[in-house]
Amino acid sequence: MPDITETFSAGAPRELALKSAPDLLAWTCPAPLRDQPRVVMGHGGGGAMSAELVQHIFAPAFGGEVLAQLGDAATVSLGGARLAFSTDSFVVRPLFFPGGSIGDLAVNGTVNDLAMSGARAAYLSCGFILEEGVELSVVARVAEALGRAARTAGVEVATGDTKVVEAGHGDGIFINTAGIGLIPAGVDLRPQRVVPGDVVIVSGAIGVHGVAIMSVREGLEFGVEIESDCAALGGLVDTMLSVTPDLHVLRDPTRGGLAAALNEIALASGTGVLIQERSVPVPSAVANACAILGLDPMYVANEGKLVAFVPREHAEAVLAAMRAHPLGAEACVIGEVVSEHPGMVVARTGLGGTRVVDLPIGEQLPRIC
Amino acid sequence: MPDITETFSAGAPRELALKSAPDLLAWTCPAPLRDQPRVVMGHGGGGAMSAELVQHIFAPAFGGEVLAQLGDAATVSLGGARLAFSTDSFVVRPLFFPGGSIGDLAVNGTVNDLAMSGARAAYLSCGFILEEGVELSVVARVAEALGRAARTAGVEVATGDTKVVEAGHGDGIFINTAGIGLIPAGVDLRPQRVVPGDVVIVSGAIGVHGVAIMSVREGLEFGVEIESDCAALGGLVDTMLSVTPDLHVLRDPTRGGLAAALNEIALASGTGVLIQERSVPVPSAVANACAILGLDPMYVANEGKLVAFVPREHAEAVLAAMRAHPLGAEACVIGEVVSEHPGMVVARTGLGGTRVVDLPIGEQLPRIC
Repeated sequence: MPDITETFSAGAPRELALKSAPDLLAWTCPAPLRDQPRVVMGHGGGGAMSAELVQHIFAPAFGGEVLAQLGDAATVSLGGARLAFSTDSFVVRPLFFPGGSIGDLAVNGTVNDLAMSGARAAYLSCGFILEEGVELSVVARVAEALGRAARTAGVEVATGDTKVVEAGHGDGIFINTAGIGLIPAGVDLRPQRVVPGDVVIVSGAIGVHGVAIMSVREGLEFGVEIESDCAALGGLVDTMLSVTPDLHVLRDPTRGGLAAALNEIALASGTGVLIQERSVPVPSAVANACAILGLDPMYVANEGKLVAFVPREHAEAVLAAMRAHPLGAEACVIGEVVSEHPGMVVARTGLGGTRVVDLPIGEQLPRIC
Repeated sequence: MPDITETFSAGAPRELALKSAPDLLAWTCPAPLRDQPRVVMGHGGGGAMSAELVQHIFAPAFGGEVLAQLGDAATVSLGGARLAFSTDSFVVRPLFFPGGSIGDLAVNGTVNDLAMSGARAAYLSCGFILEEGVELSVVARVAEALGRAARTAGVEVATGDTKVVEAGHGDGIFINTAGIGLIPAGVDLRPQRVVPGDVVIVSGAIGVHGVAIMSVREGLEFGVEIESDCAALGGLVDTMLSVTPDLHVLRDPTRGGLAAALNEIALASGTGVLIQERSVPVPSAVANACAILGLDPMYVANEGKLVAFVPREHAEAVLAAMRAHPLGAEACVIGEVVSEHPGMVVARTGLGGTRVVDLPIGEQLPRIC
């Protein structure tokens, strides 16, 4: 087994000294076997194994045309209103981490899924599954964080439910939120609208949420604290749509990271995505932590970032509007849509070569949200 | 410790012979202590402890006027449409039971919550939390049951999410569903509309779901199989509303049973509820199982029944319409609303006396849904 401390001493920057030894034996393999009869961690990773589960088990069982859209949120019509409807369960470990908590994630995760279809989240549902024995003061802290995040995002918790399972049959607190919001007239965000020439923009630095969680888990603590970027993106999206409602697609690169988000769009649109690797904003603290841990920042989860596919003629104006918003101050162009290699994401490396950016199989860091 | 087999031999009917000995030591006390710093099973029971959790932790943290309605579903307005919005998590053990599965419950539980506000469920979200190691064939069977139940109920699964937790940190499969549906014009179902003189109707036999679950759990198996009444009530509610949109309140007596549902309505309406105990339909198999187990059928969970508070002038017509529907064939009047004992539920016993039917503290049978 490699000695991580030694690896660090050999070259990693001073501030990344590990405060404590990692418990490598406690790590879980995300995808030990692909064709196996049981659920493995990778099925929850937002990559190819998750997609297989949906494709082979859930979609055939549930049927329905709306589910087949497979976006971050479903678009449905009810009483003449065009609504976005989305759900996410949150099983993050630990419950509190630098820059946020499971309560913040439970709000922002669902609010952002709705925002990716252009909808401003209006109402959330909130289902708690509590493990017998968890301290009520912890439940209260999580609930307060959730309520605060909801007020910040301008969304109302309208309905809820609480279940309790016996000690040893849960893990402290699991939360599910579902959300509904109104999609503005003229907004039609979906990968099928992506065409060669579209400009690919990210709203800021990637990999921050995943590394923040990792930094406080499994005995890993770095000398420098990396805070999660967990935030609600409804306001940023409103700003972008005020420039033009004609954005093509938005995606928040959560589980599976930027690589999974770009691959999903390339596949669903049947176009190629070409990324300039050195344009992808990776903070040095994230890059260094990833180097030590053997992770690729392109695959690390985010929770306060979005990637936008914008028609070329609007790209400059949209980018300027994003940069004027606090959550888009570091927005930048990272690539473009091409007609070559349809369904694939290719990165031009710093040395001028190219590499394929695959859809991840499982998840590098399980239980990241 | 009492010998249950002996108790049976002393008088219970032949068909209730226990096929196997119950493991009494494995039972969980629903509410060991009321003022304690940790979550206990009773917090998930739908009784007084659940209400305290909502009142003291969730409601203050989340704020908001909609949540304060505290109905089975929230009523919200979006894009000019009046919507019902509700969520439930399902942690039932075992996953499959006579008459249904966690997949059926996940659909019918949320569909019924929406129906109780008069809305026909239109779209469901579905979040799975899977435990590492659970067989994919089990996940597939649950998904199929869920899909079938959705088609039966006429609701579409529009969006979903899957998370995986490590073995030993979950319990096979937990499911959360949230649902949205349109509330028809003129329908305004809420306890505040209940007035003395209203007639209380139940749609059929009570206690069946809870006893069905119990019969296959904890080593308890009765000689006679009792099947869960799990069903979607949207069609029955439509039938009732076609007689008159002026029903006052509907409730599905799930966790905490009929007693909890009646108490919630009495409390919220500030009226008294007077029940004729012998009018409450309890099948003999349920009554006998409850007698053996020391349970009160009034507190046992249902999942395919509703209780309606109907203005006296419409009661006869509504009852007739219910009886003409397959899910209301055994509907009957069980009592009325009175101005005496406001906020309390009182039952007139077979002997002519009265007893108070309290709000349960916790839950007699944990993880019933």
